[in-house]
Amino acid sequence: MNQKVVSSITEALHRTEIKDGMTLSFHHHLRNGDYVLNLVMAAVRELGLKDMTINASAIFDCHLPLVDLIRDNTVTALECNYMGALVGRSISAGILEKPVIFRTHGGRPADLERGKAHIDIAFIAAPTTDTQGNISGKYGPSACGSLGYAFSDARYADKVVAVTDNLAPYPLTDFSIPETEVDYVVPVEQIGDPAGIVSGTTRITRDPIGLLMADMAAEAISASGLLQDGFSFQTGAGGASLAAAFALEKIMLREGIRGSFASGGITSQLVDMQKKGCFETLLDVQCFDLGAVESIRDNPQHREISASRYASPCTDDAVVDSLDVVILGATEVDTSFNVNVHTNSQGLIMGGSGGHSDTAAGAKLAIIIAPLMRARIPLIVDHMHTISTPGETVDMLVTQYGIAVNPNQVELADRLRQNRLKVISVEELQEIAENICGKPKALKNEGRIVAEVHYRDGSIIDTIRQACS
Amino acid sequence: MNQKVVSSITEALHRTEIKDGMTLSFHHHLRNGDYVLNLVMAAVRELGLKDMTINASAIFDCHLPLVDLIRDNTVTALECNYMGALVGRSISAGILEKPVIFRTHGGRPADLERGKAHIDIAFIAAPTTDTQGNISGKYGPSACGSLGYAFSDARYADKVVAVTDNLAPYPLTDFSIPETEVDYVVPVEQIGDPAGIVSGTTRITRDPIGLLMADMAAEAISASGLLQDGFSFQTGAGGASLAAAFALEKIMLREGIRGSFASGGITSQLVDMQKKGCFETLLDVQCFDLGAVESIRDNPQHREISASRYASPCTDDAVVDSLDVVILGATEVDTSFNVNVHTNSQGLIMGGSGGHSDTAAGAKLAIIIAPLMRARIPLIVDHMHTISTPGETVDMLVTQYGIAVNPNQVELADRLRQNRLKVISVEELQEIAENICGKPKALKNEGRIVAEVHYRDGSIIDTIRQACS
Repeated sequence: MNQKVVSSITEALHRTEIKDGMTLSFHHHLRNGDYVLNLVMAAVRELGLKDMTINASAIFDCHLPLVDLIRDNTVTALECNYMGALVGRSISAGILEKPVIFRTHGGRPADLERGKAHIDIAFIAAPTTDTQGNISGKYGPSACGSLGYAFSDARYADKVVAVTDNLAPYPLTDFSIPETEVDYVVPVEQIGDPAGIVSGTTRITRDPIGLLMADMAAEAISASGLLQDGFSFQTGAGGASLAAAFALEKIMLREGIRGSFASGGITSQLVDMQKKGCFETLLDVQCFDLGAVESIRDNPQHREISASRYASPCTDDAVVDSLDVVILGATEVDTSFNVNVHTNSQGLIMGGSGGHSDTAAGAKLAIIIAPLMRARIPLIVDHMHTISTPGETVDMLVTQYGIAVNPNQVELADRLRQNRLKVISVEELQEIAENICGKPKALKNEGRIVAEVHYRDGSIIDTIRQACS
Repeated sequence: MNQKVVSSITEALHRTEIKDGMTLSFHHHLRNGDYVLNLVMAAVRELGLKDMTINASAIFDCHLPLVDLIRDNTVTALECNYMGALVGRSISAGILEKPVIFRTHGGRPADLERGKAHIDIAFIAAPTTDTQGNISGKYGPSACGSLGYAFSDARYADKVVAVTDNLAPYPLTDFSIPETEVDYVVPVEQIGDPAGIVSGTTRITRDPIGLLMADMAAEAISASGLLQDGFSFQTGAGGASLAAAFALEKIMLREGIRGSFASGGITSQLVDMQKKGCFETLLDVQCFDLGAVESIRDNPQHREISASRYASPCTDDAVVDSLDVVILGATEVDTSFNVNVHTNSQGLIMGGSGGHSDTAAGAKLAIIIAPLMRARIPLIVDHMHTISTPGETVDMLVTQYGIAVNPNQVELADRLRQNRLKVISVEELQEIAENICGKPKALKNEGRIVAEVHYRDGSIIDTIRQACS
C-alpha cells in the first residue's frame, strides 16, 4: 500500500518530481474562494521553478497573485475556460508573452482525451479525501458539491495531488474521484474561503428590465413547442437567468409539465424546481450555492457529472446534446447572432466561454438574454471584439425591446408571433439602441495577440489582441 | 444528438463495422444466467465472421455454445479471468489452437490501461440503460447490482454496445457507466435468466468440517492482531467462506469491533454485517445474491467500485492494497504455499484466479481455507498442476487438521499458538492426508500448452497443458 499522505505541498512537489516547464492543472469548484492555486504556486516559486504552464478550468479574481508569478517567469503560459476581469486586465495589457489558450468546458476534457493537451501534475482542491485519495466535494468545511471539472484532470494527468482540509478515514464511501487516480494527499489548514466558494443564496434579479426579459424568455420557451413532458433545460446563475427559470417554473407547474432534467451549474432555484416535480433529475457539473451543495449531498435525483459527460464534443452524446433549451448571456452580439462572452466593450478580457458555446451547439433552442444597452453602450455591434459562440448555434436573442430570431429559424419566429410575442429583427434592435445611445466609435485593439479562443472542436475561432490603452 | 438505439444486435454489429479478427469483450455480472454472450456470438456467426477473439471477464457453463463457435473458427482465441468446468473441459481437451489467456480481476483492467490488451467492441449486458447509454446494473428484471468488471471495457473499447431488456427514459439518474462511453443501445427481450444471475440466497455450509475450519479461521484472524477498529475484510461466496464470515461476525459483535470495509464480491452475509455495524462500508465489484443487489440499490454505504479500483496492480493503491484479511479457497496447495485455483486434481480447467492472487498480494493476511482431502484426493501435493497464486503472498492454510503458517510469518505462528490454535507444518498436513488416502500417483499432463496463466503484473506465472486422457 502506498503511503500517500505527505506533510506539505513542497513535499508533494518533490515527490512528483516537478521540473521547469511542466504543466500544472487546477479546477475552479472553489470559485472565488479558492486558496489551492495560490498555495501551490507559492511553493512552486519558492523552489525556484520557472516556465510553468497553468491549465486551470477557470481563473478568478482571487488568483491575482498569478500576475506576479507571470512577471518573474514562474508562469509563462496560461490555459483556461474562463478568466475574471482582474487577471484578465493584466493579460489584456500584455504581461504574458505566449497567448492564453481559452477553451470551453467541453473542449478542455476533450483536448485531454484526444491528446491535444497534456497535464504533468494535477492539483485537486479536495473538500474531503481519505488517506488513499478517494475524493468528494460534498463534505467538509470547504464543501463545494460537484467536482465535475476535476474528473478529467484526475484521469489524464501524469501525477495527481489532492490538497485537502478534511482528511477522512479510509475508505470514504461517497467518493467522486477514486484513489486509483490519486498519487499524493496533502493536508493543509484551509483550501478555501467558504464565503467565496459558494454564495449563500443566488438571487433572482429585482431589476425590472431583467424581470421583463425573463418573462419574455419563459413565454418564448412555452411558445416554441419544446415545453412538453420530458423537457430539458439549462440556465446560468445570473439574476436574469434565474428570473427566467422562476418564470418557467410558474408555467410548468400551471400546465403540469414534468421535465426530464436540468443540467450544468446548479442553483437553489433549479433544486426547488426539481423538488416540485418540474424535473426528474439534476445533472450537476458545478454547484453555485449552498442549496445546491446540500441537495447533491442528500437528494439521489441530484447527480454529479463530469465535464466530459456534460459537454465533451468528442462524441455527439454529451448531456448538452440532449438539451432542449439553454438560456445564456452576452457582452456583445453581432447581426449574425455571433456572441462575445470573453471581452467587454473595450476588448478587455473579463470572462470566457465556459459552457456557453457547448450548450449553444447542443441545445435545440439556445436563447441569449441581454439588455439592449449597458451604461449607454449598445449590446449589438457591427464588429465584436471576440467571437465566443458562432451565430449559427444561437437561435434567439431576448432583449427588453423584443425578441430577435435567427433567420434560419423561420418556424420558431412564426410560433412566437402566434403567441403574441414581439418578434423584431436584430438590425431593428441595433437601430433602437443606436437611436438612444448613438453609434459607438468602433474600438479595435491592434496590439499583438494575447489570447486564442479555441472552439469546442479544437479550431481557433478567434484571437484576442492587446488592448490599445 | 446521436440516435444510439438500434433495432437488433445484427444492426449494432453493422454499425460498429465489425470485421474478421476483431476482439469482442463481455462481462460476467449475469454469471451463469447470461444470455448476452451467446446472443451476440450467434449474430456474429450468422454474419459469417471468423477468427474472433473473445475477452470475457469470466466464462460460465451457460456459455457452452462457445465450443461450437470454436469448432467452426468463428472464435479462435479466448481471454478470461475464470472459466467454468464445462467449457474448461473442452479447452483442456485441446479444441482451441491458441492458448487461452487467463488473467486476474485486477490484471484484466490493468492490461487494458497499460495497452497490453485491446478491445475492438465491448458488449455490455445492461440491466437498465437509457436511450443514450447511461447504464445501471441495479434496476430492471435482470438486475445484477454492481457492474464493476464492465467499467474498463466501456472506457477502453473502441466501440461499446449496451444490450438491454430494460430501456429507460433519458436521463437515467443512478447511472454507473456514462453515455459518453457508449455508442449503441440494443433492446432485446431478455438479457439473462434471473435464476442464474444471482442466487436467491448464498448459504452458509452445514458440513461439519467446513464449520470447524470456519471457526478456526475466525479465531486465527482474532489472534492475528488485525481484528481492531478499522479492520477490513474480504471473503468469497463459498459455504466455508461464508461460515467464516459468520463466525467472525460473532467475534466482532461480542468485542464491539467496528471495521472499515468489506470488499470484492458481496453477499447477504456481508450486507448483514454492515447493517450490524461490523463494517462502515461495502466496496462492491460484484453482487453474489439478491440481498446484495437490494443493498447496493438502497444503502448509500454500499458502493459500486470498478475492477480497476478493486484490484488493479498498475499502482499500489487499489482496494486490495488496503485489505487486512482475505479468505480464499484452493483446489491444490504445495508445500511452498503456492495455490492452484485454475485446474482440478486431473489438471482439467475448472476455475481461474478471479481476484484470488490480487487479494492475496494486497492483503496483510491471506488465508486459504480448504479441506485436507476431497473424495480421497489430498489437497497438498508435491507438484501442483497449475500455480495460480504464488506462495510468498499466502500467509496461512486452514484445514480441519490444523493451521499451517507460511514460514516467513514467524510472529503470526507465535500469536496463533498463544491463542491455543493448532499450528502444524504444511509437510505434516501433507503426511496426515497421505496416511489416510495414500500418495496419489503424480499425474502430469504432457500435451501442448492450452492456456497461459498471466499473473497480475503481466508475467506468465504458469501454463496449462492439454489433458492426457
